[in-house]
Amino acid sequence: MLAIYFDGQPAIKEVPRPEPGPGEVLIRVHLAGICGTDLQVLRGYHGFQGVMGHEFVGEVAAPEDSPWLGRRVAGEITIGCGACDLCRRGLAGHCRQRQVLGLKDRDGAFASYLTLPAANLHAVDPEIPDIFAVFTEPLAAALRVLEVAPVSPTARVMVVGDGSLGLQISWVLALSGAVVHLAGHHPEHLALARPRGVAAFLSAELPAGDYDIVVEASGSPSGLELALTRVRPQGTVVMKSTYVDRYPLDPAVLVVPEVRLVGCRCGPFAGALRLLRDGRVDPRPLIHRTFPLARGLEALAWAQCPGVLKVLIDCRETD
Amino acid sequence: MLAIYFDGQPAIKEVPRPEPGPGEVLIRVHLAGICGTDLQVLRGYHGFQGVMGHEFVGEVAAPEDSPWLGRRVAGEITIGCGACDLCRRGLAGHCRQRQVLGLKDRDGAFASYLTLPAANLHAVDPEIPDIFAVFTEPLAAALRVLEVAPVSPTARVMVVGDGSLGLQISWVLALSGAVVHLAGHHPEHLALARPRGVAAFLSAELPAGDYDIVVEASGSPSGLELALTRVRPQGTVVMKSTYVDRYPLDPAVLVVPEVRLVGCRCGPFAGALRLLRDGRVDPRPLIHRTFPLARGLEALAWAQCPGVLKVLIDCRETD
Repeated sequence: MLAIYFDGQPAIKEVPRPEPGPGEVLIRVHLAGICGTDLQVLRGYHGFQGVMGHEFVGEVAAPEDSPWLGRRVAGEITIGCGACDLCRRGLAGHCRQRQVLGLKDRDGAFASYLTLPAANLHAVDPEIPDIFAVFTEPLAAALRVLEVAPVSPTARVMVVGDGSLGLQISWVLALSGAVVHLAGHHPEHLALARPRGVAAFLSAELPAGDYDIVVEASGSPSGLELALTRVRPQGTVVMKSTYVDRYPLDPAVLVVPEVRLVGCRCGPFAGALRLLRDGRVDPRPLIHRTFPLARGLEALAWAQCPGVLKVLIDCRETD
Repeated sequence: MLAIYFDGQPAIKEVPRPEPGPGEVLIRVHLAGICGTDLQVLRGYHGFQGVMGHEFVGEVAAPEDSPWLGRRVAGEITIGCGACDLCRRGLAGHCRQRQVLGLKDRDGAFASYLTLPAANLHAVDPEIPDIFAVFTEPLAAALRVLEVAPVSPTARVMVVGDGSLGLQISWVLALSGAVVHLAGHHPEHLALARPRGVAAFLSAELPAGDYDIVVEASGSPSGLELALTRVRPQGTVVMKSTYVDRYPLDPAVLVVPEVRLVGCRCGPFAGALRLLRDGRVDPRPLIHRTFPLARGLEALAWAQCPGVLKVLIDCRETD
């Protein structure tokens, strides 16, 4: 089968179709999305080698006796060992021996087929088109913010960063009824937030006042600096993005105003699928372009262009 | 009256007895304690000038018509303006125009008398000797940990730092029934923790395993480094101490394991007074020596010696 394979450089190549192991299924990938973390893989993130990609929607193609056979699915991307202390404590997502689809020790979704444990699957309702369902993983990551920092309808919240993730976070936060401000640098991205109840500003033009919760999704130390400057005493800064640079943290900035800084990663697929099914979140404005898998290198190149939000890969055409 | 006055250098000098303003009382100070923050004042913290000191127990001496007259009291140290948005939101402790006893725009407790708003006072039960009651403020600060990071009796908790605050935190955490480890550098301090249900270790000799909650009370970036290394995924690091150095924070250290980093400052006096009254916390082993106010400079010098825990100042003798 065709795949985007990374071993220091990305390449389109023929690789063997994977075989599902015990408890696993084979999934024929329909659509896959390129995420910021995939771009970090290109720069050596975790020293990953293998088939790239972790955002996808597809249909189960094997084994024949699986109750999932023929069903359309999204899939959680982390696979714990099931045996260590963290897995036994219910923290399989943080297992030290974990595999992560297309990111760590597990071939990913930029391919005609992938395998995942059946336990990782979520059925995609027939009402949800592929072009919506491919956003399940990033939308779930956006929803995770609400799990780590519950947002009251009376809250004032700011999202820093107007990339694909920042926009999705601002959309789901606005569904809570809270006052949501988005701070970014791309007027054309900020324009995608405003019709959904988000007040969007160039960072330099933010109104005065502090925020109960600030979500840092900019991927740069200056975003964290802005977040810590604008969060209120006893407020919460949710850190959603990683980057190579270190942030020089002054402990007094947290201790004196009793601010909390909360890391936040993968989120609840079921909630994301409900929002997509019910039309509460329409991700289509995020899509820049869709490439066939055979032109995956072009897709990766576009995803790295300034101001480009989501690039999709159609993995069916080459099958 | 006599006072330890700081204006770039500490000095014992005669200053005018303060006059209580509207809603305030005059307090004759019995005992005062020297805290790490007082030592930071000596190094220029906040550019404070005035009478030093914020840990105290005393008795109300004026006005004559106060219901507090003659009562023994401890006092909360922060005074909000009462009018700003933070005060109106119930965050007076974080008021931007706040005064803080002996630390910011308000003369403090290393003196024969101080003034505070009556609203800041807590009655000290007659069963609580002065030598216990003078620990109300630091013990309340230790209890604040339990407010920002609720400790389950099934939790594994580590306190980093075996100074006076770290010891008090380890004592109150052990009262929760949780497994509490203390990591420090002074065998003689670690020995003060062990009889109270705390397993105490030199930092280099900590047992393996991670912690649900780590409290950083060491006052150094290496303490935060240890905390972030040993906290479990989705665990909490409570930051209790400030210091001049910046900590070079790698955002991935919080984002990937979804760790939370929580600043923590002043705490509940009422709970501290209950623990002192009921003999749940006996602070006396922390006391290195008590000096009369007239020898306050000696007291400050002792408080800066390596391994010295709490130095007290008896403010009555010179009145």
